[in-house]
Amino acid sequence: MTDRRVLVVRETREYLLSPGETLESDLGVLELPEDIEPGATVETHLGEAFEVRRLRGTDLFDHLERTGAPMMPRDIGLVIGHSGVGSGDRVLDAGTGTGVLSAYLGRLGVGVTTYERNPQFADVARENMNLAGVDDVVDVRNGDLLEAIDDVVDEAAGFGGYDLLTLDTGDAAAIVERAPELLAPGGFVACYTPFVESARACVEAARGAGLSDRRTLETIQREMDFDARGSRPTTAGVGHTGYLTFARATSRLE
Amino acid sequence: MTDRRVLVVRETREYLLSPGETLESDLGVLELPEDIEPGATVETHLGEAFEVRRLRGTDLFDHLERTGAPMMPRDIGLVIGHSGVGSGDRVLDAGTGTGVLSAYLGRLGVGVTTYERNPQFADVARENMNLAGVDDVVDVRNGDLLEAIDDVVDEAAGFGGYDLLTLDTGDAAAIVERAPELLAPGGFVACYTPFVESARACVEAARGAGLSDRRTLETIQREMDFDARGSRPTTAGVGHTGYLTFARATSRLE
Amino acid sequence: MTDRRVLVVRETREYLLSPGETLESDLGVLELPEDIEPGATVETHLGEAFEVRRLRGTDLFDHLERTGAPMMPRDIGLVIGHSGVGSGDRVLDAGTGTGVLSAYLGRLGVGVTTYERNPQFADVARENMNLAGVDDVVDVRNGDLLEAIDDVVDEAAGFGGYDLLTLDTGDAAAIVERAPELLAPGGFVACYTPFVESARACVEAARGAGLSDRRTLETIQREMDFDARGSRPTTAGVGHTGYLTFARATSRLE
Amino acid sequence: MTDRRVLVVRETREYLLSPGETLESDLGVLELPEDIEPGATVETHLGEAFEVRRLRGTDLFDHLERTGAPMMPRDIGLVIGHSGVGSGDRVLDAGTGTGVLSAYLGRLGVGVTTYERNPQFADVARENMNLAGVDDVVDVRNGDLLEAIDDVVDEAAGFGGYDLLTLDTGDAAAIVERAPELLAPGGFVACYTPFVESARACVEAARGAGLSDRRTLETIQREMDFDARGSRPTTAGVGHTGYLTFARATSRLE
Repeated sequence: MTDRRVLVVRETREYLLSPGETLESDLGVLELPEDIEPGATVETHLGEAFEVRRLRGTDLFDHLERTGAPMMPRDIGLVIGHSGVGSGDRVLDAGTGTGVLSAYLGRLGVGVTTYERNPQFADVARENMNLAGVDDVVDVRNGDLLEAIDDVVDEAAGFGGYDLLTLDTGDAAAIVERAPELLAPGGFVACYTPFVESARACVEAARGAGLSDRRTLETIQREMDFDARGSRPTTAGVGHTGYLTFARATSRLE
Repeated sequence: MTDRRVLVVRETREYLLSPGETLESDLGVLELPEDIEPGATVETHLGEAFEVRRLRGTDLFDHLERTGAPMMPRDIGLVIGHSGVGSGDRVLDAGTGTGVLSAYLGRLGVGVTTYERNPQFADVARENMNLAGVDDVVDVRNGDLLEAIDDVVDEAAGFGGYDLLTLDTGDAAAIVERAPELLAPGGFVACYTPFVESARACVEAARGAGLSDRRTLETIQREMDFDARGSRPTTAGVGHTGYLTFARATSRLE
Repeated sequence: MTDRRVLVVRETREYLLSPGETLESDLGVLELPEDIEPGATVETHLGEAFEVRRLRGTDLFDHLERTGAPMMPRDIGLVIGHSGVGSGDRVLDAGTGTGVLSAYLGRLGVGVTTYERNPQFADVARENMNLAGVDDVVDVRNGDLLEAIDDVVDEAAGFGGYDLLTLDTGDAAAIVERAPELLAPGGFVACYTPFVESARACVEAARGAGLSDRRTLETIQREMDFDARGSRPTTAGVGHTGYLTFARATSRLE
Repeated sequence: MTDRRVLVVRETREYLLSPGETLESDLGVLELPEDIEPGATVETHLGEAFEVRRLRGTDLFDHLERTGAPMMPRDIGLVIGHSGVGSGDRVLDAGTGTGVLSAYLGRLGVGVTTYERNPQFADVARENMNLAGVDDVVDVRNGDLLEAIDDVVDEAAGFGGYDLLTLDTGDAAAIVERAPELLAPGGFVACYTPFVESARACVEAARGAGLSDRRTLETIQREMDFDARGSRPTTAGVGHTGYLTFARATSRLE
């Protein structure tokens, strides 16, 4: 990660550039120094100033190429909060998509192995991990996790099991059935599913697999409007995103 | 962190022990080896087996000493998700309390400076950071952040500003007024406030301070019940915890 | 309804009495005059005063004998609001239970025919309709609506069809299939079902029966806490009651 | 109400007509017989058929002229459910607006006196009451209830007080202060207010006025989506409408 990109910002303009890169715009030519540091101000050859700042997690939503609707910040946060994943943990992810969840986790020092069935999407996700500066900790694999599951179980056994399994695929329940072979002791499964039926299937698979602390959470989040007339929840409405189902691989000693 | 504690678990028993530590219980004496690794099984002198596993974020709720109601996993997760905080970031926190937010952040590789007014609570929080294995990255300071704010602003200037300011105190709005001096470019403020009035005060302080992307989120989270009769949200009810207000220090270049 | 009962109230004591009735309590003997009017004050022979007031809909929850969990005021209100039922309308109800929905409707001048399978519950419901002063407009029938459906369809044809069908039974979907034969043009079906699956079954039955304006509503209701510290939704939590599914018998002219 | 209008319906066309009225459209001339009955089918001179049906409460939203956003069916229903208002009751309403609440109540046999400050709006509301067939039970008064309050209190005293006070105006709290003089024993106040501050003001006014059973309810209502893929709350989102605050005039005997 010697080449960590930075954001170069001015009003509503925002560019994700590598140190040494040159940007040409109607405000002139900007040559970003190799030793640029966040917090600095740089100018184009026309003397127009830009602020340099670090790329932050929420900026990913503006700068990654989308191959589908990415998981929202709230749901990514809830996966982290309810699983208690930590830096240095290993996560196995299925359904990479745009890769925002993987990038968030990677930026938190988590090692991620993520499966994406669609080869074009996998390529985009790899490029996204590069943009996010996490290509050294996120391994994007093109393929179907369920088909590769026996090999992945073998890999997991080699390092003591994954700490967290994050599933955002239609066959999540079938993968949950194999969770005990994939997870380290105390590790978590987190399934993100849009429908009641798919959430229920995950809970039932978790029960069948002997996982504990099974629960499905539904989250309704609203913005508050504070104006001169008063305070109230927004009248705009916030819709359902998905159910989050968690379960845990706990001690089988009895 | 050579002395990272592990959980020693059997059915509903769960102990947080350091390698080399001895535990005496009705199941016999357990001597935890110095070189113990998560995933191992250990036995008491009576031959009773325990599973050894890593301490995870969610285990903190069971093993930290409480000095008040800790922030819940969902709210901790939402702070992380909506601020996009990353490993290596610096967080300034006010209202340490039990220290669960600080411990979660520390376990994600985030450096935390946290203020707690109550000296006894600060001592407990320090011990909790030690239990959580994050005492090297979380600096618990006994004192009032608002009183110390000028010194903290000077400190912040020395390293380019904090990446995130997390406030769980009654005077959060007054601290938000100083946020532009505390934050790095693009850094976030996150206020956790129980009441509409306090959330509104934070938004208004953020507006006054010129912060952008101001918004207050209210989160309703429910568990789903899946039983033989059918699927439904729990009839038990889930109550309000607090409003989360976010705002951002964006470029002042125009 | 010459014998409409009134509430005789003092502090936390509250009695539902008929004009002319005598009440003996530790505060003395109270003889309620035959010509008693709400708003009057009456006294026991010991000179203890009671206020006389009309029985209102919400008082039913305190004074009807329960044979199960009654439908809540909010759900009764939502059935009325979303169906637009009016005075003089005819309602066919299945699953009388305690009879609170029937009593509410009866008190709004709606004629109700309600089926209760359990003979003891039907007897209690009849007595409850008498207490509520609506026994002249609510016909409690002991039996299974689905078994009696052909006869009920014949009856409905005799007066142009019911204006509203309210279903709070496990076989609601099967009754919905017959709704077009039971309803007047523009009439509504309202199903109250605890589970997603049963709500879905009602929507699918309504679709199969050619009903329009099909929709299932989920309602989350919270109380606000206003105290000296501030304003917020209650931390106590409010649970799920049931889904309300509505559909309408609209013109088959095309 | 000898001239009760009926709906004349065909596919998506829907006309609110009086018996004897003539309708000309591209489908030909329709002469509605004086003795028309709901359930009948009528034809234009070109032989095009229309179904005749009764006007129902929910149809008001399509056929009344709007002078502002009308109260929604759910909120109207909640006022009815939580107040337990019954046929023959008297309601005092402030903030007539389009008059949908008044029309709903009138159609339930409730006598309504409603105040509207804007003279044009009051005229429209009167016409709307005529369309809804409730002009004999709803008295639309052009004026400010708070200014007329002393006279209204005198009127109320003449018949024993109102059973329900419904307030949808900015000065609701000031009217609540006078509620004890306006209400019959056991009568209710219901305030519909968009903001937290205005809801709180109503609760505080109710407390100051000695009303009991004070509470403010917030209602979140979502539609469920049932499709071939599964069942879930709608992703479209449903926004905040208003807070409903209830309080009751209970016995002052102690």
